[in-house]
Amino acid sequence: MNSNPQPKALASLLTPCLVLDEVKFNANIARLQSTAARRGIAFRPHLKTAKSRHIARICADTFGKRAMVSTLQEVEQLRGCGLEDFLYSVAIVPSKFERVCSLLAADCRVTVAVDSVPVAAELAAFCVRTKKHIPAVIELDLDGHRSGVAPTDAELLLAIGEVLHGAGLLRGVMAHAGESYELADDGALASCARNEADCTTLAAQTLQDAGFAVELVTIGSTPTALSGETHRGVTELRAGAFVFFDMVQAGIGVCEPKDIAISVLATVIANNKQSGAVIIDAGWMALSRDRGTTEQAVDFGYGQVCLEDGTILEDVLVVDAQQEHGVVKPRAGSSKTLPDLAPGALLRILPNHACATAAQHDRYQLIGEAGDVTAEWPRFAGW
Amino acid sequence: MNSNPQPKALASLLTPCLVLDEVKFNANIARLQSTAARRGIAFRPHLKTAKSRHIARICADTFGKRAMVSTLQEVEQLRGCGLEDFLYSVAIVPSKFERVCSLLAADCRVTVAVDSVPVAAELAAFCVRTKKHIPAVIELDLDGHRSGVAPTDAELLLAIGEVLHGAGLLRGVMAHAGESYELADDGALASCARNEADCTTLAAQTLQDAGFAVELVTIGSTPTALSGETHRGVTELRAGAFVFFDMVQAGIGVCEPKDIAISVLATVIANNKQSGAVIIDAGWMALSRDRGTTEQAVDFGYGQVCLEDGTILEDVLVVDAQQEHGVVKPRAGSSKTLPDLAPGALLRILPNHACATAAQHDRYQLIGEAGDVTAEWPRFAGW
Repeated sequence: MNSNPQPKALASLLTPCLVLDEVKFNANIARLQSTAARRGIAFRPHLKTAKSRHIARICADTFGKRAMVSTLQEVEQLRGCGLEDFLYSVAIVPSKFERVCSLLAADCRVTVAVDSVPVAAELAAFCVRTKKHIPAVIELDLDGHRSGVAPTDAELLLAIGEVLHGAGLLRGVMAHAGESYELADDGALASCARNEADCTTLAAQTLQDAGFAVELVTIGSTPTALSGETHRGVTELRAGAFVFFDMVQAGIGVCEPKDIAISVLATVIANNKQSGAVIIDAGWMALSRDRGTTEQAVDFGYGQVCLEDGTILEDVLVVDAQQEHGVVKPRAGSSKTLPDLAPGALLRILPNHACATAAQHDRYQLIGEAGDVTAEWPRFAGW
Repeated sequence: MNSNPQPKALASLLTPCLVLDEVKFNANIARLQSTAARRGIAFRPHLKTAKSRHIARICADTFGKRAMVSTLQEVEQLRGCGLEDFLYSVAIVPSKFERVCSLLAADCRVTVAVDSVPVAAELAAFCVRTKKHIPAVIELDLDGHRSGVAPTDAELLLAIGEVLHGAGLLRGVMAHAGESYELADDGALASCARNEADCTTLAAQTLQDAGFAVELVTIGSTPTALSGETHRGVTELRAGAFVFFDMVQAGIGVCEPKDIAISVLATVIANNKQSGAVIIDAGWMALSRDRGTTEQAVDFGYGQVCLEDGTILEDVLVVDAQQEHGVVKPRAGSSKTLPDLAPGALLRILPNHACATAAQHDRYQLIGEAGDVTAEWPRFAGW
């Protein structure tokens, strides 16, 4: 696992870099495992957050052979980690059929998502022509967020279902409660989770009533998956960000900031006496441009600042960021002050959005219980 | 140059991907060259935007041996391209001295930026101890944006100057008019450029009056560098985003959208009849989370949408983005409508911010005058 033979000090790392707290990460995995077990339902982790073979193996050991991916590159990179049943979440187009084919193997099956009759028909024709098996789910749109069929549009559901079923390619229906990220209390979240399940099972029932076998009824987002709601007819839950969590998830209420497993390690490079700010070498290139907490009750700028050992500095934020500079200050109006931080001091920044921040880095620096660096895990990017 | 022996069609590319229009790129380089020549001043391109050996070579051929970098990784990757005099723009800290040393060679000199006496003293002591030569500029802060010495703070300037001069390491002063990105008219831009030059030459004069040789008086940002202002005492101009331009630069008025050389090629994956949107396979992972035009007079969402051939679709924007999904619609309130775009159609998205969008990709797909793909240029990332 690229373990370091000898753990090394955090201070030996070149900054900025991405740090993964193994204790918190393991606790987050265990929490989801226990939620899924309590609900007695299969779980499919979304690997777009981690994009790591090490983490894919842990997911396979914990949750089984299912995985969700947001790119075909994730299938290519994560084959052979014990995951075999990949569900590609972005609606397929014919120009990607050949790429999907090139990934198929005895231990690598790829299910695609379809939301229109023409694409379903092209997929069916392609599979007949090439003698390949590329099963599909019908993507549902619960909230007008993006692609997908309205779950009440029985006509379109049945038209797509008929084409896929006729070609032996129909697996089921897939929904994602994208609007759950805009919520912030348990009641709203439970109601969102119920709606996600109700809409999805309605669509599944429409297909089943027409005689089409529906094996996969899959729903999920980290907030709704963790909401604890149980639903008849749903066969699978999905979630991705739960492996790390982030400030947006904390704002929704599904974790606390202390549960967040990744942070960006940065070095103080200057004290600006004119503006009362401390400047760090982590700008938006290291933190990402994600400002997901702006739309929540509490805005965390470009991230929550912690000391080198992970202690959260209440009300101390990265208030602004340029490409390679972060500006650290207390939140406007706060009575908190900055600790004394000379150039060379280390800080850790908890991200707004784990998927976006992790994507800015090509590896995780693992830290163990003692706070030392115990291993380095590569991550990949691209399509 | 990784030229394709045979140009291939744009439609043969896997999407999303980053496309570089060679005709526009060459025109942007020529424009800056002519501005610098007219002003009779040395020019130092900032390579943080392109992060490409191919583009570094073109810069070396056009502008000479000088280069600005935002990471030491850029020095490591761009050595041996004809550039020899690297200026590292992020204030140095002692934990990075060894890394700088490891990069030095007969054809690779690195100048660092310093804004405090303690770091200047540690640098001087390090150079004595290791017998290495790491010259430095004093970073100025013109607007309280980040690190740097106030140009009127003669006491601090002289204290740092004395330490660096005493060790034979002082090259000069460096400023960056970060606030130029918030402007939008020629008058304000000219005034900002004058202020940048005046503050920087004032600081240089303070050092020179104390008997310290100041060889490098360097200023710049793409907007101020292109403003056409000429200033006595300034020895060097810098700019980075000019190679590509972007919607933010267009909003400032230093280019037009038709000058923008990079775009993200995306495939239409769905039509959402409920929301009247077209969904593409370029989300924020391909476009970046940068929303730089929100603070300008006209907001372009996550980017301006063009047809496959580059024709700009007025008022058609990526209005929302998830990780791998972009939502394309006419601007709210616009009378424009979407053209007929079935799944499989290609679109190109002009970015808000070239540095941020390019950073999401590991290569450029070059397209020539005929619109075919003529070459692939890798780009790098990381620190």
